[in-house]
Amino acid sequence: MLITLTTDFGPSSPYVAAMKGVILLINPDVRLIDITHAIRPQSVFEAAQVLAKTTPLFPADSIHVAVVDPGVGTKRAIVYAEFPWGRYICPDNGLLSRLAELAEPTMMVTVTAERFFRDPVAPTFHGRDIMAPVAAHLSLGIDPAELGPPHGEPGNWHLTQLDWRGAEKVANRITGEIVSVDSFGNLVTNINRDMLADVPSDESVAIRCDDHETRNIFTTYADQPPMTLVAVIGSNDQLELAIVNDSAKIMLGVDVGTEVEVIW
Amino acid sequence: MLITLTTDFGPSSPYVAAMKGVILLINPDVRLIDITHAIRPQSVFEAAQVLAKTTPLFPADSIHVAVVDPGVGTKRAIVYAEFPWGRYICPDNGLLSRLAELAEPTMMVTVTAERFFRDPVAPTFHGRDIMAPVAAHLSLGIDPAELGPPHGEPGNWHLTQLDWRGAEKVANRITGEIVSVDSFGNLVTNINRDMLADVPSDESVAIRCDDHETRNIFTTYADQPPMTLVAVIGSNDQLELAIVNDSAKIMLGVDVGTEVEVIW
Amino acid sequence: MLITLTTDFGPSSPYVAAMKGVILLINPDVRLIDITHAIRPQSVFEAAQVLAKTTPLFPADSIHVAVVDPGVGTKRAIVYAEFPWGRYICPDNGLLSRLAELAEPTMMVTVTAERFFRDPVAPTFHGRDIMAPVAAHLSLGIDPAELGPPHGEPGNWHLTQLDWRGAEKVANRITGEIVSVDSFGNLVTNINRDMLADVPSDESVAIRCDDHETRNIFTTYADQPPMTLVAVIGSNDQLELAIVNDSAKIMLGVDVGTEVEVIW
Repeated sequence: MLITLTTDFGPSSPYVAAMKGVILLINPDVRLIDITHAIRPQSVFEAAQVLAKTTPLFPADSIHVAVVDPGVGTKRAIVYAEFPWGRYICPDNGLLSRLAELAEPTMMVTVTAERFFRDPVAPTFHGRDIMAPVAAHLSLGIDPAELGPPHGEPGNWHLTQLDWRGAEKVANRITGEIVSVDSFGNLVTNINRDMLADVPSDESVAIRCDDHETRNIFTTYADQPPMTLVAVIGSNDQLELAIVNDSAKIMLGVDVGTEVEVIW
Repeated sequence: MLITLTTDFGPSSPYVAAMKGVILLINPDVRLIDITHAIRPQSVFEAAQVLAKTTPLFPADSIHVAVVDPGVGTKRAIVYAEFPWGRYICPDNGLLSRLAELAEPTMMVTVTAERFFRDPVAPTFHGRDIMAPVAAHLSLGIDPAELGPPHGEPGNWHLTQLDWRGAEKVANRITGEIVSVDSFGNLVTNINRDMLADVPSDESVAIRCDDHETRNIFTTYADQPPMTLVAVIGSNDQLELAIVNDSAKIMLGVDVGTEVEVIW
Repeated sequence: MLITLTTDFGPSSPYVAAMKGVILLINPDVRLIDITHAIRPQSVFEAAQVLAKTTPLFPADSIHVAVVDPGVGTKRAIVYAEFPWGRYICPDNGLLSRLAELAEPTMMVTVTAERFFRDPVAPTFHGRDIMAPVAAHLSLGIDPAELGPPHGEPGNWHLTQLDWRGAEKVANRITGEIVSVDSFGNLVTNINRDMLADVPSDESVAIRCDDHETRNIFTTYADQPPMTLVAVIGSNDQLELAIVNDSAKIMLGVDVGTEVEVIW
C-alpha cells in the first residue's frame, strides 16, 4: 500500500519527516512516496495542478495526502475523497478541484472521527496530527465511512472549487498565460492541445509572450537550434515555450501570469 | 526495519545516495526515510533540534543515522545510543544532546569494530564508510555490544553536551530568541509552552521582535487577517511569530538569533 | 528489487513523481531510490560522474534510470546496459561513459520495443513514457533481449563517449581543474589519488587555484585550523580544496572549470 505526500513545506523539510514518522508508527509496512514539497507556500492553485498531473498515474488503491493549508486551524473541512484512480486526504480548499474536472468523486467524507487523530492536535499542524494518522489508518484497511459523515451526496458533493482562469479562443487567436515554470525554465501555459487542434502546423502561426515571438509549434525542443525560442506541446498536453538548451524564464524575463498569445 | 538519515549534505545530494547504496548492499530489505539533508552546513545545533522534534515520532526499533560532522576524521567518537523511542548512530558531538533532555540513553557504545566498516575508510566521509554500514548491520540484527566498548556507564554516559541558550523568565517578562525559520518564513523561538502557562490570553500581552510588536498569543495563524503579525504556540510547543499568508522572516528582516520578548 | 533515479528535473520535481507513478503502476513492489535530481540542467557531464561515484555501491541487480536528456525526441538512442555492478536505462548520450571506464558493459541493447512504452509517448518526456515503464518491466523479470536489438557487439558496443578533459602531469607539475562543488563549498578536482602517488607529503608541495595557494596535502579537513585553505584527497579519491568550516567556493570566488595546479 502506498501513501503519497504533497506539501508546501519545502524540499527536505523536517515537517515532512514528522508526518512520515506518524504514519510509520501506525503502519510500519506502508510505502511512502514524495510527490513534491516545493509547492509555492500556500499555493492551493499550484498544488491542485500538480495533483492532477501526477497522482492519477499511481496505483488506484494509493492514498494521496496533500497539505497545502492556508486555513489550518479554521473551520475549513478536512475531507476524504475517492476517485476511480486514487484516494485523497486533504483540506477541502480547492486542492481537489482540478482532479474533479476529470471525474466526479465516487465518495466524499468529512473527516471528523477524532479517534483516528493524534492527541492533542496542534492547531497549526493538521498535516501531522490529523491527515497523516488518518491516512495511515486507511492504509490499514479501515472503512472510510468511519472517518465521518458524507461531504454532500453523490452528484452534489460539497467540493470547494477554485476560480480557474482558462485560456480563451476568439476567431484565429488564443489568449492564455504562463501557469508554471519547470526546472529547465520552460514556460508551461494554460493553452491545451485540444484548443490547438485546428491551428496550422507551419510558419503562419505566431506565438507571442511579452514582446517575444516565435513561429510554428514543434514536436520537441531539439527540433530547433540551441538558444532559439521554440513552442511545443509539452508532456502534459499544454503549450510550452522554451529556449533550446537554456532557460526561457531567465532569457525572456517572464514568469507565471505573463500573457501568451497564439495567432494564425 | 527502518533507517532514517539526517545530514547537512544538501537536498538531493549524491553523497546521501552513496550512503543509501552502502546500506542497501548490506541489507537490501531495509527501508530508508530521509529526515532532512538541509541542515545548515555543520550546524550540530540545528540538527540536534531536528532530531529531537522528528525521530521520536518513528517506530521504536528504527535506526536513526545523523551525519553532521565538522570533526570528521578527528578523534571525536562515533557512537551508538539507545533511547526508549529509537536507536542512533552519529558522531558524539552534541547531536544527541537535545534528545538526552527527554530521557537518559539506556545504552551507549563507542563504535570501534572495524569489521563492520567499509574498507578502506575515507577520512573525510565516515557517513558512507562507518555510519552507513554499521547501521545496516544493526538492521540485520547484530548485538549493539559487538560495535565496541561502552561509552561511559549507565547514569554517566559520556554524551557530549551543547551549550543551549534557553529563554529566561524574570517577573512579567520572558526573553528568548529565534532558533529556526521554517519554509513559510515563520519564526520559531526558544520560548516554550510551559514558560507561557501563566501569561494572560488577552491584549495585555506584548510580543516584541526587533522593533516590531504584536499583542496576544493566538491559537492558529488564521485567527488574524492576512498580512498581520501574529504570535502562536506552534506545533512543536514553541512560541512562533508569523505574518499571516506571508513570510515573517522577509517582512520583519530578522533571522535566527534575533531576540524575542514577551511582556505582560 | 531496486530502481534508482538520476535526473536534472530539480529537487522535489513533480516530473520525478510522474515517473515514480508510472513505475509503481506496473510494479507496485519495486523500491525506488533517488540518486539526485539536482544535476545541473542538461549536464550529461555531471550526471556521468555522479552515476560513476554512486550507482556501483548499490546491489548488482539494481536498475538505474538516468534522465539527463537534452536530445529528447531526437534520434539519439535509449539503451539498456549491463555492467558487473548494475543495470542501466538511459539515453546513449555519454551518461554511461564514466562507468564504461571501470569495465566494459556485458550487454547493451537499443531500446525499441514499444509494447513496453506508455501509449502515447510524449516527444518531450521519454523519462516518463519510455524509460520509467521499461525499467518497471525489467524489474518484473522480462529478458532484456526483448527490449530491442544489440547496441553494437561485445568488444565494440556503440556507447557514446564524452570528451573528458583529464588532468595532465608533466615533470613535477600536475594541471587539472575543478569538476564539481559539493554542498559545503568544497572544490573537487579531476586530479586523482593515483596521479599524486609520488608527490611528497610535506610543505614542499604547493596547490594553487586562481591566485590562492596552500601547501601540503592533508588527510582530513580538520587537520588544519578553521578558515584555512586546505587540500585533501577526498572520499572519491580526488584532490579537493576546502576552507575548514566554511565554503571554499564562496571564499575563493571560483567554480567548476577553474584551473588547479599541484607543484613540487
